[in-house]
Amino acid sequence: MDGRYFEDFRPGEVIDLGTYPELTESEIISFALQWDPQPFHVDPEAAKESIFGGLIASGWHTGAIAMRLLVDALLSKSHSQGSPGLDQIRFHRPVRAGDRLTGRYTVLEAEPSAKRPRLGKVMSRIELLNERGEAVLSIVSTGFFDRRPEPGA
Amino acid sequence: MDGRYFEDFRPGEVIDLGTYPELTESEIISFALQWDPQPFHVDPEAAKESIFGGLIASGWHTGAIAMRLLVDALLSKSHSQGSPGLDQIRFHRPVRAGDRLTGRYTVLEAEPSAKRPRLGKVMSRIELLNERGEAVLSIVSTGFFDRRPEPGA
Repeated sequence: MDGRYFEDFRPGEVIDLGTYPELTESEIISFALQWDPQPFHVDPEAAKESIFGGLIASGWHTGAIAMRLLVDALLSKSHSQGSPGLDQIRFHRPVRAGDRLTGRYTVLEAEPSAKRPRLGKVMSRIELLNERGEAVLSIVSTGFFDRRPEPGA
Repeated sequence: MDGRYFEDFRPGEVIDLGTYPELTESEIISFALQWDPQPFHVDPEAAKESIFGGLIASGWHTGAIAMRLLVDALLSKSHSQGSPGLDQIRFHRPVRAGDRLTGRYTVLEAEPSAKRPRLGKVMSRIELLNERGEAVLSIVSTGFFDRRPEPGA
């Protein structure tokens, strides 16, 4: 396959990650029952008593949605080699049933890996916006990508 | 219910989060097919060609496991009111089929919320260790908890 190498990422570039299908209450509850069974994620009645005033998606669910958009729109078309970590994950606003989340990837920095000559490191900001254009999630992500092979190599 | 309030968290306290059942290849692939379908998470053959040399769990899967341990061992027995964000998520080592992950929660700081008098903010380090005692994941997490009601209030 062809696809993006490290050298194809330019600081300042913004990549549209597309939109995830409208989130349902049953998806929110189903994810949370498995991974984050707190009352405000799994029980609509109990959630009314929380500071959120109703059922909200687990932040891990929202993050997983961002990851899926990132893979479909970008990583699956790139020579991605994983990530050493994430920083500054912020849950800016609650995510609720009926929300439609759109992703955006902004390249912050790109530099060759000091330790692995085959790889380059790309720092990015990943954001999810709801259907009203409000940011619900942001992440500063570091990703490794293969460097473009020398011609004839 | 009784349970931990903000005032019950002391900096330096370490809480054992217990051990997640041994991870299977099919669980790793199933999670990744839904949320992070990169070759090194979903295709054991293709994974051999990656820098990981074999199938590894998605970092979002590992994080979700940490969250589940945290809820079962601590948050479900506390007056938890969610989280504004996470910092310094680090994937220290690959997680593979057969790994048994144990969680640990260390209280870093605890302070009343400046904005919400009903809540207190607890910063913690959450770690997952594999069956060889090696750290595979660490997270600096901020969580909100209800403050203990005044007697008679």
